[in-house]
Amino acid sequence: MEESTYRAAGVDIAAATRAKELMAAAVRATHGPAVLAGMGAFGGCFDAGLALAGVESPILVASTDGVGTKTLVAAAMQRYDTVGQDLVNHCVNDILVQGAQPLFFLDYIAAAQLDPAMVTAVVGGVAQACRAAGCALLGGETAEMPNVYAPGAFDLAGTIVGVVAREQMLPRTDLAPGDAILALPAGGLHTNGYSLARRLVEQHSAYDACPAELGGASIGAALLAVHRSYLEEVTRLRATVPVKALAHITGGGVLDNLPRVWAAATEQTGRRLGAVIRRGTWEVPPIFDLLLRLGNIPEQEAFHAFNMGLGMLVIVPADAVAAALAAVPEARQVGCLIEGEGVQIAD
Amino acid sequence: MEESTYRAAGVDIAAATRAKELMAAAVRATHGPAVLAGMGAFGGCFDAGLALAGVESPILVASTDGVGTKTLVAAAMQRYDTVGQDLVNHCVNDILVQGAQPLFFLDYIAAAQLDPAMVTAVVGGVAQACRAAGCALLGGETAEMPNVYAPGAFDLAGTIVGVVAREQMLPRTDLAPGDAILALPAGGLHTNGYSLARRLVEQHSAYDACPAELGGASIGAALLAVHRSYLEEVTRLRATVPVKALAHITGGGVLDNLPRVWAAATEQTGRRLGAVIRRGTWEVPPIFDLLLRLGNIPEQEAFHAFNMGLGMLVIVPADAVAAALAAVPEARQVGCLIEGEGVQIAD
Repeated sequence: MEESTYRAAGVDIAAATRAKELMAAAVRATHGPAVLAGMGAFGGCFDAGLALAGVESPILVASTDGVGTKTLVAAAMQRYDTVGQDLVNHCVNDILVQGAQPLFFLDYIAAAQLDPAMVTAVVGGVAQACRAAGCALLGGETAEMPNVYAPGAFDLAGTIVGVVAREQMLPRTDLAPGDAILALPAGGLHTNGYSLARRLVEQHSAYDACPAELGGASIGAALLAVHRSYLEEVTRLRATVPVKALAHITGGGVLDNLPRVWAAATEQTGRRLGAVIRRGTWEVPPIFDLLLRLGNIPEQEAFHAFNMGLGMLVIVPADAVAAALAAVPEARQVGCLIEGEGVQIAD
Repeated sequence: MEESTYRAAGVDIAAATRAKELMAAAVRATHGPAVLAGMGAFGGCFDAGLALAGVESPILVASTDGVGTKTLVAAAMQRYDTVGQDLVNHCVNDILVQGAQPLFFLDYIAAAQLDPAMVTAVVGGVAQACRAAGCALLGGETAEMPNVYAPGAFDLAGTIVGVVAREQMLPRTDLAPGDAILALPAGGLHTNGYSLARRLVEQHSAYDACPAELGGASIGAALLAVHRSYLEEVTRLRATVPVKALAHITGGGVLDNLPRVWAAATEQTGRRLGAVIRRGTWEVPPIFDLLLRLGNIPEQEAFHAFNMGLGMLVIVPADAVAAALAAVPEARQVGCLIEGEGVQIAD
């Protein structure tokens, strides 16, 4: 934002300047040797010659995503750093399923009127998650759009670019019945199902309610639980066992996201694949039990609206399960691929 | 969007499916040999080995931007393809000023509720401008966020990634007093000044008014004039004369954007630079005269809020002006660099 924009909005310029400096420092802390220009340049510059050296047949993988109406929960709770982390981690996981490691990220924050403290908190969260992922926060844009956004609401979107060596790309097409499905646990709803969750909480409870099943935490805090990045766990798994495919469980849940991993294999081999997910093989975080109880939601709908604790699914050959679980002890085997179609939730 | 989302919103599924197919075809038409995966994959895949071959010391340049409240004019006029073009061209110009050529683009469209016909028109415009720029439309995201967006309003943002050989990067730091400033003409407001322009039109006139000074066109149509891409003209200029720097005139106008080109030169050489822009050396599009008249806006404010017809400024050595104007006849010399500070508008 220009200083004149702040001034027109009646904002304390000294506070805005401090906020800008804090942001700039947080952003610079994400910059490795491949970043050429800092903030204030026209576009962010990234040395591809340096960053891609040593990657055989480098493929860039790019994805744009947002955090959806989780921003409304953040606004209700007046807590803005976690959605910044959610945004980056969501994007990191999205390109991870194609085998890519993050290179750089750009964010977009828009509202009717931007509060500098809010923007600083969001960008701080974005920068924190970028640093954790070894990803440069290369640029971003803030926009004030009165009459487009509802008062107090904001949107948050971002774009990630990563790289993978061509022969390391996922999913592989040798997926077969009998392959094991491992799950890496979700921290909560991540960034999907918030329209439903908010409706349930607003109709039947409140964000500051602390029901017994959440063990002392408020519903609002449980809903803001950060979208986990699986970069570290997946990197460790790929170094240990032949990972065949990954499914990041986002909008549409396991029912919509898991079939996407074998679409290419089916197209290439003609072999129809499906999956069975076994109930009780992983821990469902208590926020889901609460939401299902509040809305009296049937299982099939729940597995479509929410990740239900299945944050990232990892498909490995059956004989690699023991080694995989030894490498990442919090992983669980939750099912396997079968001949067939679709995803069944079964005992 | 998922089909279930369409269904929940009471949308005609057959129409939505047709819209999706049209979009997919428009997107595929932007895909050159470097694009690996089509729509529906998790992230877009782009063969860096292929695309960067032959670029010495390749630097990736990335930028995220939006079209601001021009989306409200599009909604008022029920015309959605031009803002898609605006978005891409704005981003193309933003990385062009660092010398970069476009590689790929990702878009983000969000609203309280998305109309498939609107999304198809926007993405069609995005794809059209991408194709014209030789840029792959690699991915995108649509989001429905009730309670975040005002009814009928939408936001449109995008991210571009381009490449430049390190030694071709702009701005150069040998900028000097006496260098000529050429202007490439703007098609209208491009994507800046719409909050002011909308206020003026809504208070003093109407989008469907056709005042004499617009020669038959409506104010709404003049306000939707497409943000021009200068890729072709700049490429031609760089092939002909030693272009030292470019300034894309966006938010803050010539007064804020032109000084950004010599910031690096000043930091490196300690030499203070400024610029004089000479009135009457270029054609100011009539929409600006109209807006200035409606709001009785002083010149200084006008040059801060609007591009005033100066779409892209190109800085070349004084002895290269004749060759530059021969290469791009619609360019005009509008001023020169001086010793000093800031930008003066003078006779």
